Amino acid sequence: MMPGPTPVPEAALLALAKHPIGHRTKQFSEILAEVTANLKWLHQTENDVLMLNVSGTGAVEAGIINFLSSGDRILVGANGKFGQRWVEVSQAYGLNVETITAEWGKPLDPSVFAQQLQADTQKQIKAVVITHSETSTGVLNDLETINRHVKEHGTALIIVDAITSLGVVNVPVDTWGLDVVVSSSQKAYMTPPGIGFVCVSAKAWEAYQTAKLPKYYLDLGQYRQAAAKDTTPFSPPVNLVVALQVTLRMLKEEGLEAIFTRHERLKNATRAAIKGLNLPLLVEDSFASPALTAVVPQTIEADKIRSFLKQRFDLELAGGQDHLKNKIFRIGHLGFVSDRDILSCIASLEVALAELGYTNFIPGAGVAAASKVLSTAVDS
Amino acid sequence: MMPGPTPVPEAALLALAKHPIGHRTKQFSEILAEVTANLKWLHQTENDVLMLNVSGTGAVEAGIINFLSSGDRILVGANGKFGQRWVEVSQAYGLNVETITAEWGKPLDPSVFAQQLQADTQKQIKAVVITHSETSTGVLNDLETINRHVKEHGTALIIVDAITSLGVVNVPVDTWGLDVVVSSSQKAYMTPPGIGFVCVSAKAWEAYQTAKLPKYYLDLGQYRQAAAKDTTPFSPPVNLVVALQVTLRMLKEEGLEAIFTRHERLKNATRAAIKGLNLPLLVEDSFASPALTAVVPQTIEADKIRSFLKQRFDLELAGGQDHLKNKIFRIGHLGFVSDRDILSCIASLEVALAELGYTNFIPGAGVAAASKVLSTAVDS
Repeated sequence: MMPGPTPVPEAALLALAKHPIGHRTKQFSEILAEVTANLKWLHQTENDVLMLNVSGTGAVEAGIINFLSSGDRILVGANGKFGQRWVEVSQAYGLNVETITAEWGKPLDPSVFAQQLQADTQKQIKAVVITHSETSTGVLNDLETINRHVKEHGTALIIVDAITSLGVVNVPVDTWGLDVVVSSSQKAYMTPPGIGFVCVSAKAWEAYQTAKLPKYYLDLGQYRQAAAKDTTPFSPPVNLVVALQVTLRMLKEEGLEAIFTRHERLKNATRAAIKGLNLPLLVEDSFASPALTAVVPQTIEADKIRSFLKQRFDLELAGGQDHLKNKIFRIGHLGFVSDRDILSCIASLEVALAELGYTNFIPGAGVAAASKVLSTAVDS
Repeated sequence: MMPGPTPVPEAALLALAKHPIGHRTKQFSEILAEVTANLKWLHQTENDVLMLNVSGTGAVEAGIINFLSSGDRILVGANGKFGQRWVEVSQAYGLNVETITAEWGKPLDPSVFAQQLQADTQKQIKAVVITHSETSTGVLNDLETINRHVKEHGTALIIVDAITSLGVVNVPVDTWGLDVVVSSSQKAYMTPPGIGFVCVSAKAWEAYQTAKLPKYYLDLGQYRQAAAKDTTPFSPPVNLVVALQVTLRMLKEEGLEAIFTRHERLKNATRAAIKGLNLPLLVEDSFASPALTAVVPQTIEADKIRSFLKQRFDLELAGGQDHLKNKIFRIGHLGFVSDRDILSCIASLEVALAELGYTNFIPGAGVAAASKVLSTAVDS
């Protein structure tokens, strides 16, 4: 129950174990063509969706550096570990970064972006970088509104870290006109870590033409050229691509609406359960990410709960990062997670809480609250 | 029988299919610690050996850009597709590149490096980049001699693409004082593509301190810091690392000497067979790589032979690249390749040659020549 690597279905694990085929073969090109078509479907886009052999961080870096030049002014939203990382990436490349922060656990304020963008009458802001679902806290930032302000600005690109939002909540790339959308395999894709995805609009490709930051392995132009011939510029992680073929078929069969509804249901059930256990949630309902839920156990060290669950039930939850270390635990409910997984997680958590001396709950109250949400959801 | 992805042993394929464990767990840290120790053994070094989630190209790029600044003068050897790629990488970052070329299929001339290095009394040459085994042609460049010239220069770093030489021929990193040595998982490691390795000397780390090329995902300093705590800075390709744990144990059990002897034997058997079939070899004996053998079938299109072998025997050989396309085919014999694989490959090739109208050989002559080498080798 981690927010990444997320659970991988058996069919994908078995696909991983297939002997790697040559990546310059017709057979592999056919796989790439199918995978690419399904990636476009998942992104709701006609834009290019490129695959890189990198982690999510590498993919976001590619999504930033391919479209900018040293000294370019950009706005970066930072309300958690990952938003902060995109600030660091941008600074490492000598970009003129204006960081728009919010407290960890709170959402970015779209009006601050609006102010900066409206004040930029010289059109010097070249890009706005937003982490849609902040995995370190479980905040879902209001990408739709922030993007509307970017569109009003007219020239800035919108670059989105959608690592734990794509395939979880609606990210209609073409309808919203998102220029760069980044995701990675070990999240909603239900595939192990090792592939990063970068979706690029025509407007972003235009910016690419004049962008001067140095790059080679992360040069998306090379990936685009190769993808047009159903191949890759460098050796791809063949086994992971073959597993991805399997999981994308599963996602497509489920359908976008069903995928979004499922994640919404798991979020609601988890949050109801935590409330039923009288434990504080880090993030308010109105901007909670359907990818994961962060819990603040206050009187008990978060890492003690995690250790207990690991040892007693072989159940892994994520901890807090940086100043939230040992203050929160994070329940991942994105990707290959079922209603029963949520029930089992909450039931195990109840045992952990009781064993660790937390008494402020009625045994069974968490499971009951989750069950209620899950039953209602299926009935409706 | 490709020079990458190379065959993967069953035990590693099954390890790939294990469910990915969390990369921030004690369990994964223990795996990283073991893998790192075995990587150092394979590199014959006490230097850091870092793992990146990239292809070989990404790893070589990291091996270059972490130690240099824009405008730095470097020498790059280019006698094939990959040497040429490292020229392109270096140029993309604004380095002052002097390319030392040789015809594809011929080795780099160490004396040209010696001349340039000796003439550089101002010590402006910051690094020399060498592709040890050039995979596009099967030439093994004389790294030992070129490195001796670099050492005489005194200040330049030696940066080695050892992608198809490490774990194939002797690359004694510490004995030779190699500063940066790059390799990747889908070669002698017998693991699918997706992990790049960069081995870094103390002298290279010193250069890192003042190197100014921009980087983040490829910033080796981040990997070093994390590795000191048995972890990784970004999500690692967990499944591939678990498979690598298995194959490194196999390599260690075999032993370095046995590994080198095996590759030498397979090279000799393959070359004897091709000579027995009266087909020209692209590369002379004295600088032939034990990783792969390129054959020039002259009167028959190389790609017709490859197609025949693929369709009739499900046997994949690599083709030529760029101007060698359709002129050569390449037999990979590195990694998880046995004596019997060579016999089976040569026997199949004989069928292909006969079917495609090549008559300049006595049927069975290729297999007989290979058998002779293999028998003698085992007897001795």
